[in-house]
Order: sequence, then structure tokens, then C-alpha cells
Amino acid sequence: MSGFKIAVLPGDGIGPEVVKQGVKVLETIGKLFHHGFEIQFGLIGGAALDEKGVPLPDETWELCQKADAILLGAVGGPKWDDLPSHMRPEKALLKLREGLKLFANIRPVKFYPNLAFSSPLKENLLKGVDLVIVRELTGGLYFGKPKGRFEENGKVYAVDTMYYTYEEIERIAKVAFELARNRKKKVTSVDKANVLETSRLWREVVQKVASRYPDITLEHMYVDNCAMQLVKNPAQFDVILTENTFGDILSDEAAVITGSIGMLPSASLGEGLKGLYEPIHGSAPDIAGMNIANPLGTILSVALLLRYSLRLEKEANAIEDAVEKVIADGFMTKDLYLNNPSAKKLVSTEEMGDIVVEYV
Amino acid sequence: MSGFKIAVLPGDGIGPEVVKQGVKVLETIGKLFHHGFEIQFGLIGGAALDEKGVPLPDETWELCQKADAILLGAVGGPKWDDLPSHMRPEKALLKLREGLKLFANIRPVKFYPNLAFSSPLKENLLKGVDLVIVRELTGGLYFGKPKGRFEENGKVYAVDTMYYTYEEIERIAKVAFELARNRKKKVTSVDKANVLETSRLWREVVQKVASRYPDITLEHMYVDNCAMQLVKNPAQFDVILTENTFGDILSDEAAVITGSIGMLPSASLGEGLKGLYEPIHGSAPDIAGMNIANPLGTILSVALLLRYSLRLEKEANAIEDAVEKVIADGFMTKDLYLNNPSAKKLVSTEEMGDIVVEYV
Ligand SMILES: CC(C)[C@H](C(=O)O)[C@@H](O)C(=O)O
Ligand SMILES: CC(C)[C@H](C(=O)O)[C@@H](O)C(=O)O
Repeated sequence: MSGFKIAVLPGDGIGPEVVKQGVKVLETIGKLFHHGFEIQFGLIGGAALDEKGVPLPDETWELCQKADAILLGAVGGPKWDDLPSHMRPEKALLKLREGLKLFANIRPVKFYPNLAFSSPLKENLLKGVDLVIVRELTGGLYFGKPKGRFEENGKVYAVDTMYYTYEEIERIAKVAFELARNRKKKVTSVDKANVLETSRLWREVVQKVASRYPDITLEHMYVDNCAMQLVKNPAQFDVILTENTFGDILSDEAAVITGSIGMLPSASLGEGLKGLYEPIHGSAPDIAGMNIANPLGTILSVALLLRYSLRLEKEANAIEDAVEKVIADGFMTKDLYLNNPSAKKLVSTEEMGDIVVEYV
Repeated sequence: MSGFKIAVLPGDGIGPEVVKQGVKVLETIGKLFHHGFEIQFGLIGGAALDEKGVPLPDETWELCQKADAILLGAVGGPKWDDLPSHMRPEKALLKLREGLKLFANIRPVKFYPNLAFSSPLKENLLKGVDLVIVRELTGGLYFGKPKGRFEENGKVYAVDTMYYTYEEIERIAKVAFELARNRKKKVTSVDKANVLETSRLWREVVQKVASRYPDITLEHMYVDNCAMQLVKNPAQFDVILTENTFGDILSDEAAVITGSIGMLPSASLGEGLKGLYEPIHGSAPDIAGMNIANPLGTILSVALLLRYSLRLEKEANAIEDAVEKVIADGFMTKDLYLNNPSAKKLVSTEEMGDIVVEYV
């Protein structure tokens, strides 16, 4: 019996309730497949601010350093919105990414036929949508220096720096090509090489990495065009590779097209096996504590955790198959249920967790 | 009879054929409303590279400096894609924007009921979509310094700088609030204030400008969320105000939602009346010279030219009403016609120009 250390950080808003369902599913996998998961909880975000006065307390940081993998709910909410930037809940997330060197953010977006109703797109565009966004997560405008507000001769200005080294681009490109190998063998690298120097370097390095993957097709696309294509014809994509800021924008846009933002998981990985896993939805303070939030994004994040950090592919598949079946059978939380002709039964957050456990 | 000087730059791909229709409509307006338009043609982009060896020849630059307004087709194409950055067709556009200090890019996006078929979005989301994106056009990552590729101790890296002064933000914010006054009185300012220092300054300045417009509602939205909301519920927006790079991405995304990218115009304005007007579509080399391109984006750009640079509101409305009627009557170019149940007659680029002239 292997002893995996999992740090669990519920966070704010609906974070705790969806994470509870994720943990339930994780424990079920442990029992069924005979794995020992040592689960330890930590404070993060607004919850940590309220109790410890900082968004990422030392205990939480140590917990994450020692863990094999981290499961996170969500951080943030209006209560903490007016704090100075180094005290904001989001800062905890940025610190974890930077501190643990989690440079690769992976966000799969997949269409479930029973959820066509919830999508803003016409149904004929959704067939075959199954893409992954690989977003660089520790470089670019988020962390580049100089960064700040300045005053010169009474003139006020602010600066952020988009900075990328050859190596930073190379390592994230590799992640994309490796992923494409086990998928549809196509990488779309997104940049703004007609305007940005970082994009020109990006394009060159990606091109070089591509030469080591002759089985993978590489195409380059400008970010403005990609923002169009994601809406116009999302099924054309397999793996989308892009830098931090573009990835932030495009991955949220991509998330909305299948109409199932509550269902989408994400993984943030570094050089080793350790990773941070979280649903891509936010803390949704307006529905917190009501037992109506969709826990499937968190549950599918647990599947990614098993796959990428613990190398338990079979176990990951068991969860993904169960979720697919739950949706196919028409069990839906409120976000997906309302007016959906494919919905059979409205279930709560807790009930959704229980049904997945049963199907697993 | 007022003598307005109009510089016309057809450019590449479908540029010349759509511009020809725009000029036809402009001349019709001149005759009907008794205005003298002194039209002078200039080379730009790939066409200029081929003839003069540079994307923006001196003659063209002088022409634009003297003109009251500039009408542009489109620049670029695969033929010139491998040139170094200072020789690319796009560079001409960036130089014109910078040189003429055209800091405000205005892109209206409007839904035409007869075009619901062409939209990737479900029809119920399109009703009431009538928004304008106000994009800052001469600051941010596009022009900030340092910008380049460097090497230090064998380490290669590249840098672009997102730079904004207080004044740059203030003047573009004013444009947005002024526009909102004659519309639905709402401004959505888009930034990434949870991560970027430029965005924090942006938010502060916009807030200050807003206090001078008590009749306008201001809301702030993160750029990732805006990329979602544009697809999920585009009818919520009136005026979207944002910086250069975010505006590039969001305006192309917004353009695609109504399914009528061939129909969308744009204006780039500075402190005075002079402006640059162009359809938002590209040069579409694959259909160039086939007389099938949609000229309505250019024709509607002529309407904006009349409104903003020549202060001829009545004349601008005449064109916009004519276009609305043409579409309502089911006359469509190939991009809109195919399979569209609201289409009545397939028309060529030339024919579309003629019909608009007739309706004007
Ligand atoms: C909360 C915020 C700092 C974060 C980001 O921009 O990276 C979020 O939007 C995300 O995409 O994970
Ligand atoms: C051609 C390119 C430089 C330009 C830009 O990024 O501004 C274009 O995409 C636009 O939006 O007008």
C-alpha cells in the first residue's frame, strides 16, 4: 500500500463544498484500488486571511512543499477585494505557482453531448470538441520585472514586463508536444509574432522543439485569430500552446463554449511529478453554502491528480468514465439542469458526489 | 461645396475590390448631398513592398498627413510573411497609427436579425447585441520600451513592455464615456487588475474619469471573464473600454459572435478630426480577385468616416440605413448567403456596391 501525501486546500466560497466531494471520490478510489492517501487540509485565500492574516500561511506552504499533489477549491470573494495586492487571496495562488515552479497549466475542454443545451454555441459546432490548452504559468507579464508604478517629473506611469527566456519556452513547448502524442497529434501554438518580440522568440523555439516531434503537426496562429476560431470552429483544435496572459484569456473563453464551466478541471505541473489541481470555476460566493454547486470540475481534477502526479492512469480513467456516465444518464446539478431537455434528475452537490462514488 | 481630402489605400488581397465599392458609395454621397470629395490613392502593405520596397512609402505617408480622413482596405498575405518585422505589411498600419497619433480604435458590433444563421451563437443570445469596443491603440505592449531580443551570459531572452501613462489612459477613457452618452450609457472597463500594475493604474484613472460622467454607469471586468461573457451573454455590453492587447483579442472575438465579420467597420481616431477607417476583416488572399468578398465592412467604414472625421451625421446614417435595408431585403454576398434561410439573392462584390448605391 503506497502512501501518497495529498494536500487539500478548500479555500473560499463554494471551494469547501466541492472539495469535500472530490475528497470523497479520492477516498473511494483509495479503497477500491488499495492505495493509501494521506490527506491533510490547509488554509488558503480569504479563509487564511480571516484566520491567519495572510493569504498563504507558512503551514500551508510547508504542507504543499511536502505533498505529492495538491487539490485546491477556489480562492477570492468580494470580502477581500479591496485589500492591497500582496494581501489578496489570488496572491496565494500566484505564490504557489511560482514557489513550486508549476510552469505548465493544463486545461482540457471536452464536449458532453447531453450538455449541448447549456452551450452558447450552436450544436453543430460542438461535435468533436476535445481540446487541451497548455498555458505557460510562471513567466510573461505575470512575473516579469520591472513591474510597478512610477513617477517622473510629475508624470505617473505603470509598467509590466513580458519576459521570456529560451528555456522557459522550450520546457512548456515540450509539455504540449508530449501531450499531443497521446492525442490527435496536432499542436496550435498561439502568439502575436507580428507585433511582439517575445512572440517571435516563442515561435522560433516552438519550431525547434517541433523538429524533435516529426509525428506531430504544428501550426502557428495569432492570438486575435485564435480568439475568433475558438468560437467559430472549436473542433479544429487538439493541443493549444500559449504564454501566460494569452492562456488566461483563451482558456476562459474555451471553457465557456461547451457550456459546462462547472465541469472543467485543471492541472498545474512542474519538472517533477508534483502538481496543483483545481476546477477552473471561481469561488462563486453568491451560491456558496447552498449545496447546489457543481462538484464535477473538482472531481475531474482529482482524476488529473491521479494521472499526472501519482501515475495512476487506470484510477483516473475510472473517475472520468464515471462522470461521463453520470452526465449521460441525465444526473445534473442546477447549473446544467435548468430547462435542459437531456436532464433527468436534479441533484445537489452532495448527491452528485455520492452518485459519482457509486458509478466508480 | 466643401472640399474634403480623402486618402484611399486599397492594400492587399481583397482590399482593392472592397475599397472600390466603398469609394463608389462615397462618391454617391458626394453627389446626393453636394459635397466635394477629393480622393487620392496611395500604396500600402504588400502592394507597396512590391512596387516601392517598403510597406509605407513616403508618398503614402505624406498623403495621409494631408488628408482629412483615410480609407484603408486590408494589408498582408503569405507572400510577405517571412520578411523581417520592420518590412512586414502590418508595420505600415502600426506606423500610421503611431505617426498620426490615432490612439482610439472604435469597433461597433451589431447584430442583424437576417444574419442569425451565420452566427456561431444560439439565436436567443444575439437579440439586442449592439456594442462598441473602444481599444487604446498607441500604447501598451505594442509600443512600450524596452522591446527586443537579448543575450546575457549565453542566455537568450526577449522582452516586450506594457507601459501606460496616466494621460494615455485618461484620454482613451474619455472617448469611451463620450460614446456611451449617446448610447446605452454603460461603460465596461476591462483589465487584469488582480495581476498587472498597468491595470491597477488603468482602473484608478478610469474611475476618476467616470466621476465626471455621473449619467454613465461604469463596471470593471477582468479580461478573462470578459472573454467568457462575450460568448455567454454579449447583449449585456454597451461600450467596452480596454487597452491595446486586450482590445486586439476581445474585438476579434466580439466580431465573430454576430456571424458577420465581413460587415464590421472600424475607426481609429486621435485628438483632432482626422481618422483611419477600415473593415476589420483581413486581406483574405484565398478569395482575392474573385468578386465574391463582402464590401459592407468597407462601406460601413465610409459611414464612420463621414460621421467622425467629416461630421456628416446625416450622410453616415444614410449609408447605415441603406446597408440595414439591403440585409433585411435578403441581398447577400457568398459569406452570408450559403444555406442562410433569410437570404433572397446571392450578389457579387460589385453588385453589392451597386445595390447599396441604389438604396442610398
Ligand atoms: C486568479 C488569477 C490570478 C488567475 C490567473 O490569472 O492566472 C486565474 O484567472 C486563473 O486563470 O487561474
Ligand atoms: C495587423 C495587426 C498588427 C493588427 C493589430 O494587432 O493591431 C490587427 O490585428 C488589428 O487588430 O488591427
